[in-house]
Amino acid sequence: MATPGSGFWSFGSEEGSGDAENPGTAKAWCQAAQKFTGGIGTKLCALLYGDGEKPMETGAKEGLGSAEKTPACTCNNKPCSCQKADINYAFLHSTDLLPACNGEITTLSFLQDVMDILLQYVVKSFDRSTKVIDFHYPNELLQEYNWELADQPQTLEEILLNCRTTLKYAIKTGHPRYFNQLSTGLDMVGLAADWLTSTANTNMFTYEIAPVFVLLEYVTLRKMREMIGWPGGCGDGIFSPGGAISNMYAMLIARFKMFPEVKEKGMAAIPRLLAFTSEHSHFSVKKGAAALGIGTDIQIPYTPPYNGFVPFLVSATAGTTVYGAFDPLLAIADICKKYKIWMHVDAAWGGGLLMSRKHKWKLNGVERANSVTWNPHKMMGVPLQCSALLIREEGLMQSCNQMHASYLFQQDKHYDLSYDTGDKALQCGRHVDVFKLWLMWRAKGTTGFEAQIDKCLELAEYLYNKIKNREGYEMVFDGKPQHTNVCFWYVPPSLRSMEDNEERMNRLLKVAPVIKARMMEYGTTMVSYQPLGDKVNFFRMVISNPAASHQDIDFLTEEIERLGQDL
Amino acid sequence: MATPGSGFWSFGSEEGSGDAENPGTAKAWCQAAQKFTGGIGTKLCALLYGDGEKPMETGAKEGLGSAEKTPACTCNNKPCSCQKADINYAFLHSTDLLPACNGEITTLSFLQDVMDILLQYVVKSFDRSTKVIDFHYPNELLQEYNWELADQPQTLEEILLNCRTTLKYAIKTGHPRYFNQLSTGLDMVGLAADWLTSTANTNMFTYEIAPVFVLLEYVTLRKMREMIGWPGGCGDGIFSPGGAISNMYAMLIARFKMFPEVKEKGMAAIPRLLAFTSEHSHFSVKKGAAALGIGTDIQIPYTPPYNGFVPFLVSATAGTTVYGAFDPLLAIADICKKYKIWMHVDAAWGGGLLMSRKHKWKLNGVERANSVTWNPHKMMGVPLQCSALLIREEGLMQSCNQMHASYLFQQDKHYDLSYDTGDKALQCGRHVDVFKLWLMWRAKGTTGFEAQIDKCLELAEYLYNKIKNREGYEMVFDGKPQHTNVCFWYVPPSLRSMEDNEERMNRLLKVAPVIKARMMEYGTTMVSYQPLGDKVNFFRMVISNPAASHQDIDFLTEEIERLGQDL
Repeated sequence: MATPGSGFWSFGSEEGSGDAENPGTAKAWCQAAQKFTGGIGTKLCALLYGDGEKPMETGAKEGLGSAEKTPACTCNNKPCSCQKADINYAFLHSTDLLPACNGEITTLSFLQDVMDILLQYVVKSFDRSTKVIDFHYPNELLQEYNWELADQPQTLEEILLNCRTTLKYAIKTGHPRYFNQLSTGLDMVGLAADWLTSTANTNMFTYEIAPVFVLLEYVTLRKMREMIGWPGGCGDGIFSPGGAISNMYAMLIARFKMFPEVKEKGMAAIPRLLAFTSEHSHFSVKKGAAALGIGTDIQIPYTPPYNGFVPFLVSATAGTTVYGAFDPLLAIADICKKYKIWMHVDAAWGGGLLMSRKHKWKLNGVERANSVTWNPHKMMGVPLQCSALLIREEGLMQSCNQMHASYLFQQDKHYDLSYDTGDKALQCGRHVDVFKLWLMWRAKGTTGFEAQIDKCLELAEYLYNKIKNREGYEMVFDGKPQHTNVCFWYVPPSLRSMEDNEERMNRLLKVAPVIKARMMEYGTTMVSYQPLGDKVNFFRMVISNPAASHQDIDFLTEEIERLGQDL
Repeated sequence: MATPGSGFWSFGSEEGSGDAENPGTAKAWCQAAQKFTGGIGTKLCALLYGDGEKPMETGAKEGLGSAEKTPACTCNNKPCSCQKADINYAFLHSTDLLPACNGEITTLSFLQDVMDILLQYVVKSFDRSTKVIDFHYPNELLQEYNWELADQPQTLEEILLNCRTTLKYAIKTGHPRYFNQLSTGLDMVGLAADWLTSTANTNMFTYEIAPVFVLLEYVTLRKMREMIGWPGGCGDGIFSPGGAISNMYAMLIARFKMFPEVKEKGMAAIPRLLAFTSEHSHFSVKKGAAALGIGTDIQIPYTPPYNGFVPFLVSATAGTTVYGAFDPLLAIADICKKYKIWMHVDAAWGGGLLMSRKHKWKLNGVERANSVTWNPHKMMGVPLQCSALLIREEGLMQSCNQMHASYLFQQDKHYDLSYDTGDKALQCGRHVDVFKLWLMWRAKGTTGFEAQIDKCLELAEYLYNKIKNREGYEMVFDGKPQHTNVCFWYVPPSLRSMEDNEERMNRLLKVAPVIKARMMEYGTTMVSYQPLGDKVNFFRMVISNPAASHQDIDFLTEEIERLGQDL
């Protein structure tokens, strides 16, 4: 199967029949854009009409740094003479940028040109006539360009081209037809906030060097605890580098709560531990158990007795990765209470539903948990990464992890030291992940998140209703999905009349991978597939992308049928 | 002590005597800027002449969202009528941005206005006449503004104001006089790369969703291994969320190498473990030992015998946090070889010296390590965060951490699966940290990093030579610093003739905290202090900021003397 397209981005029509010479949608946009003054209209036109990535298939290995590129101007005079004639990136290097003496103008020009590249990418990301991905195999990309690191510097012209090339082959994770992961979409306020975070370029360990971000983490974590249902939002927490680490933190703190001596004396000083989690829980629970020296050996189905083992943790899941299922949290809470076991809820995926008055009942009982993992970078569409671990008991996290490094957490500083939160983390330096969530929350309000999430669930139900009785589809589990996960097999015509035997199974398991490969090569959409237990490869559709519409759901099924009918 | 300044940024002179009405430096820049066409000249002028943050001390609690703000235009017509009259953010919300229907123009305008705020911040960051920090106590900031998260959305006008306010109180970590942490400076290419990373908004677990970034991680880690001295750059590695996690990975993998059964059976199935590290090593080694269930109890000085304990790891340090000292790696390598112990080198801080032909001898022996932590976000000035763990043995990391999640790492994909590197991480989702390092390396070349690092070491030597015999200074350790850490006490005149007794000690230990507090309140510079062992509070000057010059070193000593002379 050939990869279609010449490398030009098309804006002509939904079917991608346009070209850079005769853009349809682009022209209409441009006419509208020209009504605006202040350079934005012209800029938008420039973004839409060409100025796109040129294919660099000739020149190969040298291509990444050799093509010519004149930055677009943003003035309103047409024709204009603004070719930034004074700034020729071909003769400039990073040493000409700030902090270089008199580097201000070059720096502003360079950063603005980078920004133009990014803005162009942003606009394209939402354009259904562009590809989700311009797929190339690893060896193709490695051979087509020279990505190597050398002794000598490249010019700023080459650096700008590196940026264009990198984005040319990037997945458009904000594309309305990108459904591949639990984290999809590109939120404009979240993006702006992440740019600001990069610019502030600081670290979360102390108030001293991140005053506002530390306060915002405090405010945001308290609000999240309120949403969980802990009285007054009391408790503790941290933004950590992803749900897996959040889950590991929970396990670490649960162990410390039961056996505080483990911190100093290690696992040798305490009984053997047992953690409970469901078969469908995230694999990070096992990764955490391996790392913490607990071991992964004992798995459900739990077969007692394990003499001498002490159960210390139940990790319930609110929104499993594949099915989007919710464990019965109230029943689990009762058991944990009875046996005095730490109750952790991995709501990395399901936590977003707490923002929805319509759907939050699915997490009933989460308020009785001792700890909760909640990833706003999933269902809430916050840019990657943004994962929170919330803890009900205050101070425990600090006791568990602190090592009192005196060079960082001086005790004789002139401000309230309770804002130096770094010592409760496993990390020393910690990336600022809170600002994008905080700013998005300010921009949307809780009600805005609610609307966004309700819409995704409504779309999932639309898909479910559409395919549950449709010819060529079989649902993987019975009943309406609890989350936006819709799991199904597409059964090509050639298999539909076959008996349900091993041969059919062996053919069916190849269907999803082939359709997926074709999707990627055409670049039209992306959706995940996997086997699970005794179920062969099936599609797992998830909807967390606020850009998706009914039309995109229709497109997905049409595309699956188009790409799979010959199998 | 009052916090000086009204909240206006001053550009007048080094002493900060200018104001927005009469900017000195700004005027000169602006005259130069006007020679440039294409909007950049005008934009620079707009950035320099006012348009800065207005103090919002009236209105208090409501201030964060209430002040008026008209975005600056970027056209060349003076006087112009480009007030973006059509885009009034006071009536717009995040729901008017993409993916909203016809949201392109509003989105481009909004993102451009955010970018203007960021560019303004960038330019100011390098201006010595601006403050490093506009310090306020936590309660002041909490009371002055309303940071709370509400049900209802804010307007885009308020969101832009939120961005300005956040940056108003941020530390200018790129400021030439910011020396507070091992990570300082703001690299323009690195910043651009981080913006691009945010815009691409993807995850490192598979080639499928991060094709270019996965390849760049492969290329960059191999290059780093080459710099370490491993033949052909062979081996393994990962970018992890900070040096502490990198060190924990090393410990995890070392344990697995010696006792692979620990993964499944836990610590109960293996002997008690012993790790060696120096007193001055980073506290993350202890945090890691606590988390992994090894325990922190046994510390050096090592007093044998510990019957039944098995030594499994030596964590040597190349560049300690406070003194910048290098452990004797060759001698340690001999011992590790003799006793078959995993040799880890924590070169989070010192690794950058591998880029320098003049200084890399300080890491002689690192090529014999089994694993190396190296944080490019420290000495190499890459934006936060960027930490690499390098492993000499290939495949070990995968065996240690993999859990074969079939929904992520499908084995029947259509491309070379060796590029799906996610299963070797403890994390599931992993932030893209490689691109900023890769792009900076392309822009500087190895020689550019070398020049930048050599300059920092030269500045540290300049400081050392300046103060080692200067009245009022005492060095904390003898001899020339190995890294850029210069540790010293400033002794105020009142203490200079005192006998070296307890009373003097008790007074001396208060000197650094007071000077530091004054520095922050004036906002003129920032440098760290701490006690260490029996040594009372001393200043630890570190230089990793490429913007710093001899003039800034001179400024630092003058400032310490000015702020400390009355103590």
